[in-house]
Amino acid sequence: MILSSKQDLLDARGRISHMVHKTPVLTSSTLNEMTGAEVFLKCENFQRMGAYKMRGASHAFSRLSDEQLAKGVVTHSSGNFAQAIALAARIKGVKAVIVMPENSPAVKIEAVRGYGAEIIFSGPRPVDREEAVHAVINERGMTFIHPSNDLQVILGNSSCAQELIEEIPGLDIIIAPVGGGGLLAGTALAAHWFSPSTAVWAAEPGNVDDAYRSLQSGKIETNERADTIADGLRTNLGDINFPIIYELVSKVLLVSEEEIISAMWWVWERMKIIIEPSSAVAVAAVIRYQDQLKGKRVGIIISGGNADVRQLAVRS
Amino acid sequence: MILSSKQDLLDARGRISHMVHKTPVLTSSTLNEMTGAEVFLKCENFQRMGAYKMRGASHAFSRLSDEQLAKGVVTHSSGNFAQAIALAARIKGVKAVIVMPENSPAVKIEAVRGYGAEIIFSGPRPVDREEAVHAVINERGMTFIHPSNDLQVILGNSSCAQELIEEIPGLDIIIAPVGGGGLLAGTALAAHWFSPSTAVWAAEPGNVDDAYRSLQSGKIETNERADTIADGLRTNLGDINFPIIYELVSKVLLVSEEEIISAMWWVWERMKIIIEPSSAVAVAAVIRYQDQLKGKRVGIIISGGNADVRQLAVRS
Repeated sequence: MILSSKQDLLDARGRISHMVHKTPVLTSSTLNEMTGAEVFLKCENFQRMGAYKMRGASHAFSRLSDEQLAKGVVTHSSGNFAQAIALAARIKGVKAVIVMPENSPAVKIEAVRGYGAEIIFSGPRPVDREEAVHAVINERGMTFIHPSNDLQVILGNSSCAQELIEEIPGLDIIIAPVGGGGLLAGTALAAHWFSPSTAVWAAEPGNVDDAYRSLQSGKIETNERADTIADGLRTNLGDINFPIIYELVSKVLLVSEEEIISAMWWVWERMKIIIEPSSAVAVAAVIRYQDQLKGKRVGIIISGGNADVRQLAVRS
Repeated sequence: MILSSKQDLLDARGRISHMVHKTPVLTSSTLNEMTGAEVFLKCENFQRMGAYKMRGASHAFSRLSDEQLAKGVVTHSSGNFAQAIALAARIKGVKAVIVMPENSPAVKIEAVRGYGAEIIFSGPRPVDREEAVHAVINERGMTFIHPSNDLQVILGNSSCAQELIEEIPGLDIIIAPVGGGGLLAGTALAAHWFSPSTAVWAAEPGNVDDAYRSLQSGKIETNERADTIADGLRTNLGDINFPIIYELVSKVLLVSEEEIISAMWWVWERMKIIIEPSSAVAVAAVIRYQDQLKGKRVGIIISGGNADVRQLAVRS
């Protein structure tokens, strides 16, 4: 496989710099004491629309031709990528259609509508949403942007770890949560080009351990179940990001639902920042696998902060 | 009255610099769009133990003689000042006794115990806790530190606005929540000496509007009721901080309970930071009184982040 070049990553970061925030890196002396590691949290919960997805969406937009921009874009997502595409489209003055499952939470639908995107509802199965997307492509000539299995999205996402590496030199390990693989692949590319001595590990809910099994088997595995509180991490890897991950990511750390919930509350209550359950997966991994991290400088990608606080407070 | 000197404020800031964090200033483009003002949030929710109280407590400790340190300190508080004294005492290796009402929330009691302070429970009335404090002073020779009506505490608190003024020059107004008056007096002194063109306003729950009435009548007023969600703001002004506030604070903005809750949720969900209800009072004031703030550069002291997220999520 051919990895993207260092210049590709630098270009991506430059092209989106006017559309995204450079997010802060936070530390917690209590977390450092607890784990024996020096932990740096790259806080994409403070990113525009509340998640790193804005980076990939912005970069995908920046690569569209004028003709493509004139016709607009379409994606399928019930989560953060829907909001990212909707916001990027609003900034660029471009039409966007988001295909969402008809059982999506009302709060997510409202957020996408709030950014001015058009929503088309589909049935709950993957095949339903794909049919809906194809209909939009065929009838309206819109360009499809995949939430994670798209090289331009991956390159945009790489800007997050580029910033982290620049601000915190000498990291031994960066841990990113893995769902569709777009953040993990971008993080791995950034470390490969800008800090080759930094290992990139993934964190994944044990209930949906497809990436863990994929790294073992060498092919893309899928999940039989989707019952994790980390709703952003239920998807599988794709044929564009998996080769990057397979080559550059050395380890996937699995955590339980209880560990995810406990880590999320710990960060809310002690660090006073709202992180979503998918982000808590990486924090939980640092706490659970601290034996492997003692004395190391460890970066964590806090992928987003779009948590439904009321619902989670009642549920967990 | 004689105000503390500029040098007093500088000294206080210097003496506590090794015990407190320099907290970040955050902005929100959405909040700016909503209000028409340029708003800067000085985030003491990220302070050690989660509130600005660490500043005043640290400075009070720094002024104790060796003999006083050897005997230890005592205070009464069921809230953030209890934790601040407990943590400062731990850092200094000094004994601390906290008198807490026996009906204090278990989570607050645990937090104080976690820092290693001794707790003495008193009855629920102010006279009960004062008797308990006097007994400790008489029997053990400990030094009493008042949470808000103490000049060294006020000078320590002034370091917060000193940092804000240094980082964000040219503020037209700084708004601080007012309860016992220790934060407001410190903020007013900092603006007086370091940015005299900056007005200092207070924000207060309408349900406990004693500071509002005190500024009108020119004497310390008390509350008949204490039913506000902003549990840090139920107390009255004191004879040391009131003269400072009366001379230097030009306005008290009152907000309703609904406005406080709504502002708190807005900050949690949109800015992704946990603030406690007392801090939300100042945010609510900026939203409600935006007509007076349009086009201005406005600093808000986010006083703390020690919110009981689960309880507030169910209750509000």
